Amino acid sequence: MASAKGACIVGLGETAYYKRGAADRSELALSYEAIAAAAADAGVETWEIDGLASFSNDSSEPGLLQSALRMRHLRLASMVWGGGGGGSCGAVAMAAAAVESGLASMVAVYRGLKQGEGNRFGHYRPWSPHSHFIAPYGALTPAHGAAMMTRRYMHAYGLTERQLGAVAVTFREHARRNPKALMQKPLTIDDYLASRFIADPLRLLDCCLEADGACAVLVTTWERAMDLKRKPVRILAASQGSETQWGTGFLGANAMPDEIYATANAKSLGQDVFTKAGLSPADIDVAQIYDPFTSFVLFSLEDYGFCGRGESGAFVEGGGLSWPHGALPCNTSGGHLSEAYIHGMSLVIEGAKQMRGTSTAQVEGARTAFVCGGPAAMPTSALVLSL
Amino acid sequence: MASAKGACIVGLGETAYYKRGAADRSELALSYEAIAAAAADAGVETWEIDGLASFSNDSSEPGLLQSALRMRHLRLASMVWGGGGGGSCGAVAMAAAAVESGLASMVAVYRGLKQGEGNRFGHYRPWSPHSHFIAPYGALTPAHGAAMMTRRYMHAYGLTERQLGAVAVTFREHARRNPKALMQKPLTIDDYLASRFIADPLRLLDCCLEADGACAVLVTTWERAMDLKRKPVRILAASQGSETQWGTGFLGANAMPDEIYATANAKSLGQDVFTKAGLSPADIDVAQIYDPFTSFVLFSLEDYGFCGRGESGAFVEGGGLSWPHGALPCNTSGGHLSEAYIHGMSLVIEGAKQMRGTSTAQVEGARTAFVCGGPAAMPTSALVLSL
Repeated sequence: MASAKGACIVGLGETAYYKRGAADRSELALSYEAIAAAAADAGVETWEIDGLASFSNDSSEPGLLQSALRMRHLRLASMVWGGGGGGSCGAVAMAAAAVESGLASMVAVYRGLKQGEGNRFGHYRPWSPHSHFIAPYGALTPAHGAAMMTRRYMHAYGLTERQLGAVAVTFREHARRNPKALMQKPLTIDDYLASRFIADPLRLLDCCLEADGACAVLVTTWERAMDLKRKPVRILAASQGSETQWGTGFLGANAMPDEIYATANAKSLGQDVFTKAGLSPADIDVAQIYDPFTSFVLFSLEDYGFCGRGESGAFVEGGGLSWPHGALPCNTSGGHLSEAYIHGMSLVIEGAKQMRGTSTAQVEGARTAFVCGGPAAMPTSALVLSL
Repeated sequence: MASAKGACIVGLGETAYYKRGAADRSELALSYEAIAAAAADAGVETWEIDGLASFSNDSSEPGLLQSALRMRHLRLASMVWGGGGGGSCGAVAMAAAAVESGLASMVAVYRGLKQGEGNRFGHYRPWSPHSHFIAPYGALTPAHGAAMMTRRYMHAYGLTERQLGAVAVTFREHARRNPKALMQKPLTIDDYLASRFIADPLRLLDCCLEADGACAVLVTTWERAMDLKRKPVRILAASQGSETQWGTGFLGANAMPDEIYATANAKSLGQDVFTKAGLSPADIDVAQIYDPFTSFVLFSLEDYGFCGRGESGAFVEGGGLSWPHGALPCNTSGGHLSEAYIHGMSLVIEGAKQMRGTSTAQVEGARTAFVCGGPAAMPTSALVLSL
């Protein structure tokens, strides 16, 4: 598997995470800080970076970052295009394709968010061309669309409130080991059940945080990685994907056929990414699953083949995602529900930390990690990492 | 050179071009029409397309096109990120990297423009973070920035008005052979000199058209291309690039060091793309050079190594870009000055037509074509095509 061209993650960079405001720094400054940290971590100078990749209309334009980082040459400026946080692993895939094909040699994949600077994700804005058609019916935010999908799934498969809550409780336990996590307060299932509804059946504690901060990873070839100071993390497979019938995004979900309703829009992608990696879901030691809402973690577990359809709720309630003894320790940093919402890039960072052996909830002997981007996005994306 | 993985252009699609309005179709409808035409040209079904690549904040989102085209799977949704039309060849580069690395197998690269639907490029809008600092001084549109660069170049290298005009006159002659070209009226150097100033020294006839329409090309591997109905056009090299010191775009050009002032921001890119192709500028049979303003064609000729510094004006005035007898027949469709302004994609189409032997100003026996994206963009991009 170790061809010289194979792409690796060789540097990790993060700012501190903030509930709001990120002190007085701009989104651009946060992104710069994360990329510079990733370069320092890899032991390279920022001017050696020759590619930049992000997603979801990141505001920190390559031209500005090129100047700030003193990059000698900008050979790749790539935005994964399309909905939500679906592009986090897709931006890594683009970087991997670029270094494998020789388009660039050292690519920084990053995401900076200071939600107060632009829109807050939890507030209404016409975020797709269809918003105008559904907003009059009260479907204003992602939570409203997710609530409908979750309710239908509960009806179809008998998912319980306690099973939804188990996702939140599990990830909070992981967050409490992670000093960077914004949510450190202990959380019981009773606390969960007592939290207010945002969009029935989704409660406050079913919804991810809004957070400010930035993350970056550096991607280069295996050959170049051999000269750098960190043990490289191998990108075994990186893919984007979206189903034909997914249609126009999850707020249009009522028109969807039953087999893709209340899924993560990732069934074909799951097949793609595991085929490319030469592994099956059973071979994965630790997972970082994008968690905008608790129920979407369940949909992703099923789409990617970690659980059968309708079985994910019981799996989580039985401790399947819990560190250290679960079958698939998941979101070991606390995830978007309890660490911070950095649009999927923080999950890529945590997946890579697990491969390096430096997570605050380290899975002993972990040799493979799975990471996925925002579910229900068009396209979404996924990674399989290995030592 | 013919490795099975090497990327090829296998389908070309265009709508009609319009001075304004594109009848009653939306940008999305125009993009759909161009992609469907490219698929028909290649002899593939639109559902076989599994990747979409565009640039410059194209409005036709992959999710919408996926539904419209009935794509079974969307494995690549890629936007080249950053200024102006710099991304046309960069989007082709991304598609090539994707098919070479296995991220996708059949990628549609496209650009749809209906300027009345969004902003017109020639009107003021704060199009970079720096606009707010320079607009108060009257630098409102791309023409203002280009005028300053052109004036300094005239001062430094003795470029004359007649030499600038020769670019416009040459491309108009080519346009008059092309029924799709919007500008068919004969143009003499006296007509040019009589045209009004837009931003001294740039006259109306130094500036590209504003136009509506869409173009698309299909990119796949050489191996797959062998099964399709058209003779594939080989992508010998495709790169993006931007210099370190280019700084914050060409409206900030007054702060630039002399060696990059009044260039196309493409010197390193030129070296990259010809090294990758294993060719030199002297090996190129026909060129399609992005022509937002006449002077930028001259800057590109010098950056990419077709002319020495300060020598391009005399080269063009001496007929160097003229079909059929010039040393480097250029913009054989009429280019953005006289065919239509489809943001660089129409030049990719014309480069591919020259390789197929189907241009309306066909260069006999042409075996190599050079195409470049918007000069002065961050990043800009270029292609070398071959039979």
